[in-house]
Amino acid sequence: MSRFLTPTLAALAPYTPGEQPQDKQYIKLNTNESPYPPSPRVAEAISAAEVEKLRLYSDPACADLLAAIAGQYGLQPGEVMPGNGSDENLFFALRAFCDENRPLAYADITYGCYGVWCGLLHIPSHIIPLEKDFSLDPTKYYGLGETIVIANPNAPTGLALPRAEIEKILRQNPGNVVIVDEAYVDFGAESCVPLIHSYPNLLVVQTYSKSRSLAGARLGFAMGNAELIADLNRVKFSLNPYNINRLTLLAGAASMRDTAYFRKNCAAVMDTRAWTQAQLAALGFATLPSSANFIFARTDAMPGGQLYQSLRQRGILVRHFAAARIADWVRITIGTPEQMRVFIETTQQILAEEGTPHA
Amino acid sequence: MSRFLTPTLAALAPYTPGEQPQDKQYIKLNTNESPYPPSPRVAEAISAAEVEKLRLYSDPACADLLAAIAGQYGLQPGEVMPGNGSDENLFFALRAFCDENRPLAYADITYGCYGVWCGLLHIPSHIIPLEKDFSLDPTKYYGLGETIVIANPNAPTGLALPRAEIEKILRQNPGNVVIVDEAYVDFGAESCVPLIHSYPNLLVVQTYSKSRSLAGARLGFAMGNAELIADLNRVKFSLNPYNINRLTLLAGAASMRDTAYFRKNCAAVMDTRAWTQAQLAALGFATLPSSANFIFARTDAMPGGQLYQSLRQRGILVRHFAAARIADWVRITIGTPEQMRVFIETTQQILAEEGTPHA
Repeated sequence: MSRFLTPTLAALAPYTPGEQPQDKQYIKLNTNESPYPPSPRVAEAISAAEVEKLRLYSDPACADLLAAIAGQYGLQPGEVMPGNGSDENLFFALRAFCDENRPLAYADITYGCYGVWCGLLHIPSHIIPLEKDFSLDPTKYYGLGETIVIANPNAPTGLALPRAEIEKILRQNPGNVVIVDEAYVDFGAESCVPLIHSYPNLLVVQTYSKSRSLAGARLGFAMGNAELIADLNRVKFSLNPYNINRLTLLAGAASMRDTAYFRKNCAAVMDTRAWTQAQLAALGFATLPSSANFIFARTDAMPGGQLYQSLRQRGILVRHFAAARIADWVRITIGTPEQMRVFIETTQQILAEEGTPHA
Repeated sequence: MSRFLTPTLAALAPYTPGEQPQDKQYIKLNTNESPYPPSPRVAEAISAAEVEKLRLYSDPACADLLAAIAGQYGLQPGEVMPGNGSDENLFFALRAFCDENRPLAYADITYGCYGVWCGLLHIPSHIIPLEKDFSLDPTKYYGLGETIVIANPNAPTGLALPRAEIEKILRQNPGNVVIVDEAYVDFGAESCVPLIHSYPNLLVVQTYSKSRSLAGARLGFAMGNAELIADLNRVKFSLNPYNINRLTLLAGAASMRDTAYFRKNCAAVMDTRAWTQAQLAALGFATLPSSANFIFARTDAMPGGQLYQSLRQRGILVRHFAAARIADWVRITIGTPEQMRVFIETTQQILAEEGTPHA
């Protein structure tokens, strides 16, 4: 840290992303990437001719990408805004709708970036604890008079609220924006997109990183009524007008138009999830019912940190959060069937060698 | 604008990027892109196999790219930090080193984003007017007690300060960071990179958008001592840890290692600039001596706005700023020799048809 850093920045605890080790090949079940490659149409779109055109700036309006997304979701292009990852969309939304006097309400166990962004932007955090079973009680969000962000499905739990419950929260907070972070929605939860034309205070954020196999392209998108989207564009054009690069614009449009491929991959992940969940149960794990491309699991036989370390030594990465309430748990991304078979076998082996037998 | 937008955001005037029309083919001399494609090594690096890997997140540490840049500039990787365009690097720097009580000092005629970012981040602007001839008097920056940003060469003037003059500013402001925005430095100005190990308060920002023909890949980089770079990484990991996508990381490393191609293109642009400047002088234009890949020019025969419009109607885009002090001028990006020949002939024609004859 230099002596030039501002005091608020010096006091900030940055987000720690899941490890991306470059040293050896792991079975990577730690950052919720898709085990399947992006649509073949993405490779077609990123042609040598398009690489040559990198000398030119990207379209700051992102017109073709917006048309592709809007077409898919039954919206107008002016109701969509892309981001350099959904992280950027969420950051823009917080900058637009919160400030020193406008707090952000969110759960104690949820995506870690919400709190970090509040620190960076001097926004007071109103943290609302989840129930004992990690479920979210919607009534605790009624009439808050604050901007709200809800990850649905939630991370790292995988639990989802029905759309009707989010709708009640929207109705009970007409004076405030409710951001629904749907990073994992395509794996079996109900999206709030159909509510956009009924609730001017609804902002839905989705990502290409999980269900569309484009984590490395960095692309997310916010959807909401045209006024909210115009607000986000005001932030974008005040911060980084050319926020999306040319090749990602092409990849995003091509991927969005390949609906069949997208559906096939989501279905495969959900199938593998069901198999993995059953296997974990057979090994004595407790798991939460997941609507995401990961499973949150714990066992009485071993602390979460130890399981994480033992798996890592055997070449399998899962995610462990050394945080209050969830230190006993690990989050396991759904990989290919073969990867999950290896994961289950390895876990069984670890439990046999190191686990505490049940009383 | 929605009723949910915070008051400070509602009062903000976003940056207006140069137009990127999608309707027809123009000779594009308006946003300082390179007329030459990126290094052939970039196309090699962006292989089909790498497109498949887009399912994985990019390396948040950007290790290979940092090694490539550091190797080129005689620095350690920890003295370099990449950004999603140099705009993001500059934004991170302002967030790290300025706040409500720490103003930013910069020229009245310079890159428009500095002021926009101050608005977005609630940073007071200390605007220091350039001299009548648009030169920057370095003594006006001595002992300011404020963070300073200087575009060198400046935009849209193209004028550059010698390194020794920036060094005096660094020496006269030991308690504050001096950011030198070197977006255009490769076209004939003196870089401040050699001063990095002598001045802990120096941050140099460069970009791939101009001299490396990668505007559409969105890649910039900041260079400074390791403590300053750690401060910028603190902002990055608090905002968007995966800020650079996989293909841009590859493009940036490949391009940086192709020194011969880079030098050849910079030399070609400088040759074409000299030819264009001579032709403009022959047509009676006043031009500023440029160290950038553009020329700032004016003529008594016609207002800048009219010249811009007339060129646009004939399929040539240049940049006109309807702002105090520079409304008479146009900024002309250096294209290929053939593009500049067409530009000069078209300008001659416009002056003949519409120009006011000299008294």
